[in-house]
Amino acid sequence: VTNRPNRQIVLARRPEGTAKESDFRLVEGPMPVPGAGEALVRVIFLSVDPYMRGRMSDAPSYTAPVPVGGVMVGGTAGEVVESKDASLKPGDLVEGYLGWQEYGVAKAADLRRLDPAAAPVSTALGVLGMPGLTAYFGLLEVGRPKPGETVFVSAGTDAKVEHVRRELGFDAAFNYKTCGEFGRALDLACPSGIDVYFDNVGGPITDAVMERINLRARVVICGQIAGYDRRGTEQGPRNLWQLIVKRARIEGMLVSDFYDRAPGALAELGRWVREGRLKYREDVVDGLENAPRAFLRLFRGENMGKQLVRVGADAPSV
Amino acid sequence: VTNRPNRQIVLARRPEGTAKESDFRLVEGPMPVPGAGEALVRVIFLSVDPYMRGRMSDAPSYTAPVPVGGVMVGGTAGEVVESKDASLKPGDLVEGYLGWQEYGVAKAADLRRLDPAAAPVSTALGVLGMPGLTAYFGLLEVGRPKPGETVFVSAGTDAKVEHVRRELGFDAAFNYKTCGEFGRALDLACPSGIDVYFDNVGGPITDAVMERINLRARVVICGQIAGYDRRGTEQGPRNLWQLIVKRARIEGMLVSDFYDRAPGALAELGRWVREGRLKYREDVVDGLENAPRAFLRLFRGENMGKQLVRVGADAPSV
Repeated sequence: VTNRPNRQIVLARRPEGTAKESDFRLVEGPMPVPGAGEALVRVIFLSVDPYMRGRMSDAPSYTAPVPVGGVMVGGTAGEVVESKDASLKPGDLVEGYLGWQEYGVAKAADLRRLDPAAAPVSTALGVLGMPGLTAYFGLLEVGRPKPGETVFVSAGTDAKVEHVRRELGFDAAFNYKTCGEFGRALDLACPSGIDVYFDNVGGPITDAVMERINLRARVVICGQIAGYDRRGTEQGPRNLWQLIVKRARIEGMLVSDFYDRAPGALAELGRWVREGRLKYREDVVDGLENAPRAFLRLFRGENMGKQLVRVGADAPSV
Repeated sequence: VTNRPNRQIVLARRPEGTAKESDFRLVEGPMPVPGAGEALVRVIFLSVDPYMRGRMSDAPSYTAPVPVGGVMVGGTAGEVVESKDASLKPGDLVEGYLGWQEYGVAKAADLRRLDPAAAPVSTALGVLGMPGLTAYFGLLEVGRPKPGETVFVSAGTDAKVEHVRRELGFDAAFNYKTCGEFGRALDLACPSGIDVYFDNVGGPITDAVMERINLRARVVICGQIAGYDRRGTEQGPRNLWQLIVKRARIEGMLVSDFYDRAPGALAELGRWVREGRLKYREDVVDGLENAPRAFLRLFRGENMGKQLVRVGADAPSV
């Protein structure tokens, strides 16, 4: 291990309202040193995800916030450069939770070995990682769609609309930010009503969806990105009455509750990807210094597929 | 059967906003005549319930609205005066769905025989009827409280607060209309958070409750009386984010879905009443002509217990 500095992105301040680049700061920290049972990992890909907005705030949540001045947390795929555990050796590719930095240390038990021959390592942060597992368990275990039912997934932007319609084979899609009155777009897209609403967005569109749910509908609350920048003042569904009329259910899910079943789910997701039945797309921004910019794209819906940051593809091994 | 007129309350017009007495009209209709398999019933008690506000509106719901000029629907307890079915005879006391009128006809199969020695007939419209079954199935089947958990039921007015605290043995209660900031009242009443929220009210208090739910909390949407007069513009919960944080569930329930299991539930409720473990209170207004006034009391929270209208206690048998 050299004395090379370890570039890191830290939380400069807690955002007020919309998060912005100046809420982050690029710093140079010391190169971490692995202890017994640990490994030093060089980060190749960093995942930026909407949940990180919650970590920037000190409002009560399901886990502790990032302290001001602390390295931003996040999932990573990288290469072992030094190992103090028999289960890992230099050159091994691993998925872990090392945060927004070039190098990190983790217990070997917290690192998942990746096989680059089976799938690109970047997929360990997307379709074959936390986001893929969220869709898998959220849809199959909480939403439980049955044949013939209508599933509605909230997301946005015109480019995405084209993508899900042409490449992913969805029956219909519309841009909730530009379609004008949601109700008409929903009526056209879902003429038989909605049985499963997989909600990543929250906000006003939920009112329109709730007016169109079918009997025994299931609403999976996976994310509420429309409200993350204005918690406490966001608009909520005004028609819980519909839950009575339709004997429907709204349920919040957190993928980590299902992690004990991740190995089986990842095996199935991997098989679907290889068979071409599950399609995915990645949106890669280069350079750790651009991680804040990549993160903020999520809140404007600018990412086209899983947003990743390529941190150290060209960096020499230490 | 005489030619005595049958007084009825009909829907005069669909309410705009808050329902008022002029939305109803007292009329004299013909005395109905039972056909084969039917019985003519003299109504003794009429039940007025919040759900009837939905029947006055033609907004889509789980059942058809009352037509303008039609007799208001509602549950009744009464006495058979003429029967064209072998299962019933004059003098039998029955619970049925005859509406806001002095006399009605129903199929014998739709009338439930009551035993006045077992319980007062009025209870067939309250603790041992639809409202009792709503509480029974909503709490036990949907909310599923476990020992040690905190259950919060939304309702209001100072008189009710005293009643549930002193007579019903609740740990705590407060008047959501006058307590000021809900949050502090909730913190005092529920220091360990809320596991089951049985919501009859909806509106702003739900925000405060949602901020205090525990992990795996269950919210039972039984009613939304705060919003019945202003559907579509009512305030909803702004923090579905909490559903993710707490992996909680909001579920709408309709008691009629459980009616196939009513006999067993009514037997258990009756036993609890006889043993003094289940307490109830009734609030009786006299005279069919006062049914609209009795109904409107519900929306101001003025009823103290199950709101009933005594229709024909003193009327002679026809």
